[in-house]
Amino acid sequence: MREITADHLPDLARGAAVLGTGGGGDPFVGRLLAEQALKRNGPVTLLGLDEIDDAAFIVPTAFMGAPTVMLEKLPSGDEITGAMRALEELLGRKATHTVSIEAGGLNSMSPFVAAAEAGVPLIDADGMGRAFPELQMLLPTLGGVQASPMALADERGNSVTLRTDGNAWAERLARAATVEMGCSAAVSLYALTGRQAKDHLVPGTLTLCERVGRAIREAREGHEDPVAAASGVLGGRTVFTGKIGDVQRTTTGGFARGTARLTGLDADTGSALELSFQNENLVATRDGEVVVSVPDLICVLDTDSGEPVTTETLRYGLRVSVLGVPCDPRWRTPEGLALAGPGYFGYAHEYVPFRGAEV
Amino acid sequence: MREITADHLPDLARGAAVLGTGGGGDPFVGRLLAEQALKRNGPVTLLGLDEIDDAAFIVPTAFMGAPTVMLEKLPSGDEITGAMRALEELLGRKATHTVSIEAGGLNSMSPFVAAAEAGVPLIDADGMGRAFPELQMLLPTLGGVQASPMALADERGNSVTLRTDGNAWAERLARAATVEMGCSAAVSLYALTGRQAKDHLVPGTLTLCERVGRAIREAREGHEDPVAAASGVLGGRTVFTGKIGDVQRTTTGGFARGTARLTGLDADTGSALELSFQNENLVATRDGEVVVSVPDLICVLDTDSGEPVTTETLRYGLRVSVLGVPCDPRWRTPEGLALAGPGYFGYAHEYVPFRGAEV
Repeated sequence: MREITADHLPDLARGAAVLGTGGGGDPFVGRLLAEQALKRNGPVTLLGLDEIDDAAFIVPTAFMGAPTVMLEKLPSGDEITGAMRALEELLGRKATHTVSIEAGGLNSMSPFVAAAEAGVPLIDADGMGRAFPELQMLLPTLGGVQASPMALADERGNSVTLRTDGNAWAERLARAATVEMGCSAAVSLYALTGRQAKDHLVPGTLTLCERVGRAIREAREGHEDPVAAASGVLGGRTVFTGKIGDVQRTTTGGFARGTARLTGLDADTGSALELSFQNENLVATRDGEVVVSVPDLICVLDTDSGEPVTTETLRYGLRVSVLGVPCDPRWRTPEGLALAGPGYFGYAHEYVPFRGAEV
Repeated sequence: MREITADHLPDLARGAAVLGTGGGGDPFVGRLLAEQALKRNGPVTLLGLDEIDDAAFIVPTAFMGAPTVMLEKLPSGDEITGAMRALEELLGRKATHTVSIEAGGLNSMSPFVAAAEAGVPLIDADGMGRAFPELQMLLPTLGGVQASPMALADERGNSVTLRTDGNAWAERLARAATVEMGCSAAVSLYALTGRQAKDHLVPGTLTLCERVGRAIREAREGHEDPVAAASGVLGGRTVFTGKIGDVQRTTTGGFARGTARLTGLDADTGSALELSFQNENLVATRDGEVVVSVPDLICVLDTDSGEPVTTETLRYGLRVSVLGVPCDPRWRTPEGLALAGPGYFGYAHEYVPFRGAEV
């Protein structure tokens, strides 16, 4: 158990955006939202999964939509509390705790808003150990936990609730509502018990985000290599260093989809890397060969500053390092790969588990 | 107060499809659904608006979507009761009565399913005096009645509820959900009190449907002109008799949209009529000149049999008569025209009230 104050947020948001693997929202926007909520309501209590009761009633929240849009249509935070309240009302029960469903600059921060405004502790965990674009892509889905009943809310006061025949239908109906709401909405879903959380969530995600964010900052302050520092904490490995050239990006179906082409620098001079993304980085292909692929993490960092670069801010001329990081082992099972492996996203390649640095 | 049995349904469904002005769903499918429900639950009590208490709590239902799709993805009736139950649950209150929101082959019949299954009386009225494609196009909208809270349900057991900032947002979010549900869904919305119903609904719609349907059948049985018989009951006027040529139809955005071109026969030989539709017939243009336009009714009837022809069944070679029928006078006010006049549908022409037959 710890108290999180506004002082903890910058490291947390930075590290969360690294684990967001290109998605999960903008860390600057996320930090501002959380700061505002903590300023209004005081610190948020962070609890480990081992500190909660099996009977705890946990109501998670997140932002859903295309991050390209959220850069312009800034969330206010009220949508998050609106979605949580709508789900609590539907379930006829108040949350005892909240948690984030994915790591990400926005989606690790907005749960602080939910926790602060509802006055409940936040659990140090998440549902993926990274970010994924579709809402059924949660480890709890593998354990049979239902996304619905779920609620969506927008900044106008519109709210939508869903009861669906499985989590893929929840994604489908929620995505359609999100698109109509202007391609971004707050959601509250996957209400789960303490027991389910212990069985199916990834423990310690927020602490890990903070360690990554702190390592980057301290390396930068000490004139050391911030990318190597992040990689060290995550057990990852740099697969490419280069300059971003062409970026193709479209916002379709409620997602930011596209590709970015990088030309190699330093040791990678003469090589090219292509990144494919759907909100999150999905596949990194070096000179025609897949080097990292979903469900493993592909994290793009500014080479000099170590700041994470989300897919919506990829732009020509940026010098970046691309890290591969092994995913939670549950994603590497046949069921995990069926839910979020390359085949689901329409890629033909076989998944080869990424090997991080020897530790 | 009357008891409606399965024997009443054929005339009712036929007349409802005439008032559906090309939309509101297929009368054959509608009749089968209602017959099934009446067979299972016994007759339905039909009450006039003047027979209900001001404090009555009325929960309407309807099918929403593209009628082209409903011809293939047949509704089972369970969606209607599912939507009604979801709305009752959301509102924490059971309906004392139900009513149809629009006239139409399916949407005047499915409320019999709701009434029979819920065991509540059906009110002899509707919300438009015709059918319109979008759900905010109800006379109660003009009186400030809210479509939301509303519920949608599909045949898989998915359900969605909405609380929206006005009726246009209800249409927008419900349409997106309907499209994902396969372009057809059952909806329950515009829950209203007896007082609101008396103030804002169109009285006697079902009785009028029955009279129209009976007049067509009796004329046909007596070897008289069924089109003239329908027109007589409705105070309408035949504006064209011809043969359907080209029909252009697309199912987009959850609607069946298109145009049909008719070449004149008999007195109309040498002329051409173009019908534009979005689920319902919107505008009839004769030799380049608008002759009937929303919000007035454009009813297409098979010339020989008098059977109503819905827009999804318009097809090459059919010989039809096109009736114009004056709409409820509330649609002719500036507020009514803003909601469902030609300008709203993107037409440039000024609305000229259609003059029916002198009676």
